[in-house]
Amino acid sequence: MTMKIGIAGYGNLGKGVECAIRHNPDLELSAVFTRREPASVTLLTPGVKVYSMNEAVSKKDSIDVMILCGGSAVDLPEQTPLLARYFNVVDSFDTHARIPRHYEAVDEAAKKGNKVGIISVGWDPGMFSLNRLYADAVLPGGHDDTFWGRGVSQGHSDAIRRIQGVKDARQYTIPVEAALEAVRSGKYTELSAREKHTRECFVVAEENADLNRIREEIVSMPYYFADYNTTVHFISEEELNRDHKGIPHGGFVIRSGKTGWEDEHSHVIEYSLKLDSNPEFTASVLTAYARAAYRLNQEGQSGCKTVFDIAPAYLSALSGDQLRGHLL
Amino acid sequence: MTMKIGIAGYGNLGKGVECAIRHNPDLELSAVFTRREPASVTLLTPGVKVYSMNEAVSKKDSIDVMILCGGSAVDLPEQTPLLARYFNVVDSFDTHARIPRHYEAVDEAAKKGNKVGIISVGWDPGMFSLNRLYADAVLPGGHDDTFWGRGVSQGHSDAIRRIQGVKDARQYTIPVEAALEAVRSGKYTELSAREKHTRECFVVAEENADLNRIREEIVSMPYYFADYNTTVHFISEEELNRDHKGIPHGGFVIRSGKTGWEDEHSHVIEYSLKLDSNPEFTASVLTAYARAAYRLNQEGQSGCKTVFDIAPAYLSALSGDQLRGHLL
Repeated sequence: MTMKIGIAGYGNLGKGVECAIRHNPDLELSAVFTRREPASVTLLTPGVKVYSMNEAVSKKDSIDVMILCGGSAVDLPEQTPLLARYFNVVDSFDTHARIPRHYEAVDEAAKKGNKVGIISVGWDPGMFSLNRLYADAVLPGGHDDTFWGRGVSQGHSDAIRRIQGVKDARQYTIPVEAALEAVRSGKYTELSAREKHTRECFVVAEENADLNRIREEIVSMPYYFADYNTTVHFISEEELNRDHKGIPHGGFVIRSGKTGWEDEHSHVIEYSLKLDSNPEFTASVLTAYARAAYRLNQEGQSGCKTVFDIAPAYLSALSGDQLRGHLL
Repeated sequence: MTMKIGIAGYGNLGKGVECAIRHNPDLELSAVFTRREPASVTLLTPGVKVYSMNEAVSKKDSIDVMILCGGSAVDLPEQTPLLARYFNVVDSFDTHARIPRHYEAVDEAAKKGNKVGIISVGWDPGMFSLNRLYADAVLPGGHDDTFWGRGVSQGHSDAIRRIQGVKDARQYTIPVEAALEAVRSGKYTELSAREKHTRECFVVAEENADLNRIREEIVSMPYYFADYNTTVHFISEEELNRDHKGIPHGGFVIRSGKTGWEDEHSHVIEYSLKLDSNPEFTASVLTAYARAAYRLNQEGQSGCKTVFDIAPAYLSALSGDQLRGHLL
């Protein structure tokens, strides 16, 4: 019997979940929910219906897990607690500072509904968080550092697009190789934002726009760019569409630590991702955790959980015997 | 209140656990058990007693978790089931083919005693296994490969020492850089043993030994060396003791996989370890899982578990709030 999955929100992330379901034979796409006009949304999967988000609760008995694919700023703080009352849910809430509040809200709703809600699933938070935790537990007292990129930052690209005279833009975050090597070497020093990452911007300007002013506004933008070494390239719209339409990303979690009676031995643990498509990879992680949400709920569990609270075996379609035989 | 840890077996691994406990303020070394004459064993930790292994069961009420530090060939298949009847236990059983049988034996004993037994903990099996599972769940249908080294293989070093005319030896397993790159590139091909690793041997020969015969016996040794490109260096005992007394190791777990409706996007997940001391790192992993064994048992769980069955949060001394606040 397949697990029935609902998708709430059909942007890049929702489409990524649809694709991920296709790679998991034990999962089945049951329905997609959208805030747009349902008739205006065309799915990749034949035979699956699109409903208005307002109809979601009425489908609660035909969906095993709802995967929430909205944004962290506005959608998820409202939608996840709302839907966790009626569905097992998984979301990718990634506003780190607000995670405790979101956890509380989802926990209360999920417990009321006897459902499981897994929040902050993806790669950071998500797979990177897991690696921070495992490394911290194994090498206590060590130091870790997380680097992002080379990859597209949507938030930074949006910030450039809001500048007057900018038609379109794409921003890449790039880890500084020397900083990666410093952390790998185990010689820990506190690195500044500027020492860890550079920012590279590809900008399409409006005709006759003042390029020097645009460049100056970008590199001096507080928080987004002022603390980094930022490079700005003006390119044509054709070049942007040809060379910069992908959404690659990735990064590194590196921990160094000591063992031995007198800390005489050094160790380095490194986890890295190189992703062609940030939303599709995030969607693949969400989909694996949907399997976990359903199974935990079947075992009688309820409430809010994060990746820290879930035994790895719950993510896999393989049985315990198979896992011990093939992957241990 | 600290968790009271017992160590069964005081070789390199047992000493490593003793050192790891020192790095974890919530843990305390309670006693060490040995098959040697207890009076002949001197610990690093002041004030802790050494007992004969035969006395272990009599200490069952004063130890929260027993960490088994014997070998997989002879010690653990007997000791882990025996002690799991009376203690929460953690071991590093690493004979992959015999894991299912070991699991059954430990499960039966631990259930009888209402204890938790965690087997096959370390880095491979252990941290590498976790990364194989997470990557397999997130990128189903992808390909993964595990590489070991650069590091000392004790089994291969021992095999060389058994050759007539060899006084001492140290063998390093080294991953082939081109093979690492091939797997990272996502262009999957089935790699042979020879393509993945080379073997480098440092040998101290007896006076007047036939070096050509020794070299020939090494490189043609079935299973151990015949399937690999093997280099043999003859060195003096002084050089061996000066340059090759460490026990470094490490390796790589690399998975590539596709996402998208038509598999149009590629992703690479890579986990690597660079370890100055193989036994001390393994001991550090065992120690973190000791914390998990105790907590799971406090929650009423019993039976045999592997790293796949344990939620990451159980490994950490931090609370759920702290983990969500700092590491998620």
